[in-house]
Amino acid sequence: MSKPVDRALAAGNRQRLADYQASHFLWHVAGGVATVTLNRPERKNPLTFDSYAELRDLFGRLKYASDVHAVVIAGAGGNFCSGGDVHEIIGPLVDLPVPELLRFTRMTGDLVKAMRACPQPIVAAVDGVCAGAGAILAMASDLRLGTARAKTAFLFNRVGLAGCDMGACALLPRLIGQGRASELLYTGRTLGGEEAERWGFFNRLVAPEALLDEAQALARGLAAGPAFANGITKTMLHQEWSMGIDQAIEAEAQAQAICMLTQDFKRAYEAFVAREKPAFRGD
Amino acid sequence: MSKPVDRALAAGNRQRLADYQASHFLWHVAGGVATVTLNRPERKNPLTFDSYAELRDLFGRLKYASDVHAVVIAGAGGNFCSGGDVHEIIGPLVDLPVPELLRFTRMTGDLVKAMRACPQPIVAAVDGVCAGAGAILAMASDLRLGTARAKTAFLFNRVGLAGCDMGACALLPRLIGQGRASELLYTGRTLGGEEAERWGFFNRLVAPEALLDEAQALARGLAAGPAFANGITKTMLHQEWSMGIDQAIEAEAQAQAICMLTQDFKRAYEAFVAREKPAFRGD
Amino acid sequence: MSKPVDRALAAGNRQRLADYQASHFLWHVAGGVATVTLNRPERKNPLTFDSYAELRDLFGRLKYASDVHAVVIAGAGGNFCSGGDVHEIIGPLVDLPVPELLRFTRMTGDLVKAMRACPQPIVAAVDGVCAGAGAILAMASDLRLGTARAKTAFLFNRVGLAGCDMGACALLPRLIGQGRASELLYTGRTLGGEEAERWGFFNRLVAPEALLDEAQALARGLAAGPAFANGITKTMLHQEWSMGIDQAIEAEAQAQAICMLTQDFKRAYEAFVAREKPAFRGD
Repeated sequence: MSKPVDRALAAGNRQRLADYQASHFLWHVAGGVATVTLNRPERKNPLTFDSYAELRDLFGRLKYASDVHAVVIAGAGGNFCSGGDVHEIIGPLVDLPVPELLRFTRMTGDLVKAMRACPQPIVAAVDGVCAGAGAILAMASDLRLGTARAKTAFLFNRVGLAGCDMGACALLPRLIGQGRASELLYTGRTLGGEEAERWGFFNRLVAPEALLDEAQALARGLAAGPAFANGITKTMLHQEWSMGIDQAIEAEAQAQAICMLTQDFKRAYEAFVAREKPAFRGD
Repeated sequence: MSKPVDRALAAGNRQRLADYQASHFLWHVAGGVATVTLNRPERKNPLTFDSYAELRDLFGRLKYASDVHAVVIAGAGGNFCSGGDVHEIIGPLVDLPVPELLRFTRMTGDLVKAMRACPQPIVAAVDGVCAGAGAILAMASDLRLGTARAKTAFLFNRVGLAGCDMGACALLPRLIGQGRASELLYTGRTLGGEEAERWGFFNRLVAPEALLDEAQALARGLAAGPAFANGITKTMLHQEWSMGIDQAIEAEAQAQAICMLTQDFKRAYEAFVAREKPAFRGD
Repeated sequence: MSKPVDRALAAGNRQRLADYQASHFLWHVAGGVATVTLNRPERKNPLTFDSYAELRDLFGRLKYASDVHAVVIAGAGGNFCSGGDVHEIIGPLVDLPVPELLRFTRMTGDLVKAMRACPQPIVAAVDGVCAGAGAILAMASDLRLGTARAKTAFLFNRVGLAGCDMGACALLPRLIGQGRASELLYTGRTLGGEEAERWGFFNRLVAPEALLDEAQALARGLAAGPAFANGITKTMLHQEWSMGIDQAIEAEAQAQAICMLTQDFKRAYEAFVAREKPAFRGD
């Protein structure tokens, strides 16, 4: 391998995150799948200034991770996430000057941007309470497994705020349709698990005790796929969000031509000819 | 209160609409909720040049209304609206020169623009016939309650026209998906009530005799919420329609920072701490 | 008719396609409805370089066809289409240089562009296998009839590629929602017929033995409608894909004003007054 290639593959571009030591949540990597567990179960796993910032930074680093090909995000103790902590976040916010408020709303938005920008598909495992910013984290994931008892609520208008938080007015209508999204955002009402599956918010429902296993199995399946190509899928779903159809088709022609140059494409063809299952390696 | 503030809050910016005298439909305001009732039941409440124009102007004035925080739109006599009157509208149109035709199609489109631009959430109460421009009015509302016997039809191709009327080709696909919207727009077929609920066109079904009460109760619930923030939710749903995700997130960071400066946000926090229900006042 | 008008209506602008001799699929025109039948049933009707190119060119010519007002696309022998042939397409691709790869992905994308650009509504009749590029052809159609045994799969990631093929990351989310589309594109899993109907991918399910008849009957109904106006509906669904609402409303005001100048609009009005069914003629 030539020197410039070595440099291109050096630490800055290819980081290992398996040994990352998380401060404000649990982090575990196994078999290419990282699991983030929000872990303050006695308060239903609220977000704080610290956990927002650490999640934003960690999802930002996933762009360059070489050992993580899919991510699961879950909550401890039977709940997903209760959103921004009332005492630790909402209390301080009511007294902040506008530049500080914007700094805060941009930080929370940056977490969603980082989740959409990392190449790894993200699977949310949603049980119990999934409220406010917690509902946003579920929505910013690529796939969502839920339980029948999951209670998803975009609570913002209940606390005097608008439904437009961290991209909700853009993301939710594309998941469940403009009319249903409008109802949830204007009323803040709770969306039950079965309704959420029927509306396409959850990809499927799972028994609570099997939820984490199922989410990790789904993520392992994704991680065993062509990781580079999966990252391109994610990039293009993001890029084409507000493109015209003809522009999207040209963008995909370019993106797919890149994928046709990968070894994984060749491996799949050769495996097919040999009547074997391809073993993808992400290059 | 200082003089410039007094001037900013003067009549032009803060109008009362409770006493508005409608000429071409019924108008009633109670508890912050305005109800528009299309009221020519013997013809299933068609629209005319006059009622289009008055609705357009009235929804335009709602931008500056201080006493209306949600709107219900309904029809008299068991039907919602039969659309543009064949004799009073379609007849004259067939002989008009093109500048006059464009003036007409722009006027009808301006009604939808005004419905989307006013800050109040609009609840359509849809029973019986909901056809042509009537179906557009339902679609231009934020929320839709229907009945099992409601018959929604985008009739345009039945009268020799295209499905692109008053924004239908943009709005309907985002409510029910591109494939289902295409079917309704190409065929003009009637969408039944239960199907409409299943597809997300109706937020829920209600018994005909309870429809107006339920719609007004829903609207009262919205009007009791944080009116300023609800208006920002509506604005952002509109603004982000064709934005990229990252741009939407920045737009929401700014919009939500504004809402965090309102008294309603502070009231909600203080009520939470005091374990009370917040009483929002819209400022 | 004046000379310039004669010239405008001459062969280049108004072609007859009833006698077109297809080389790589079946082509049949009856009563204004053209039926494309992919016809290599022993291989489940795969696409080849040749059939891609011919389909692209033929859908391109439909823009100027005077005798085709709706199109049905179907497959022979109980399957719709198995996608790009592994031996005839994927094999050669693994060794191509990047400019040739881009030429290929652009050619396949050009087929979708041509399907979206022709004014005729396209009805896909989907039975059995509907995989890879075959699933894209179904999705690029305006309406889709399916069967309970139809198996639709966006297989790209199974062959080491990204889900972004021929517009899939733009089109699929608008048909079935972003979350469900993400699942299908990341996993390549098979979507069953009933699930596809529930999600809005299929407009409805039909018994396999009735599928082609039902698709052609639906297409005949469309062809009997106002052909010019239907073409404008299709154009505007395409144009408004990523427009803001206000811009879409202005675009529709212009497009509908054009339709109000057609004879079909006048015919419909006169038929209504005479209590007759209008006979549209597409002008």
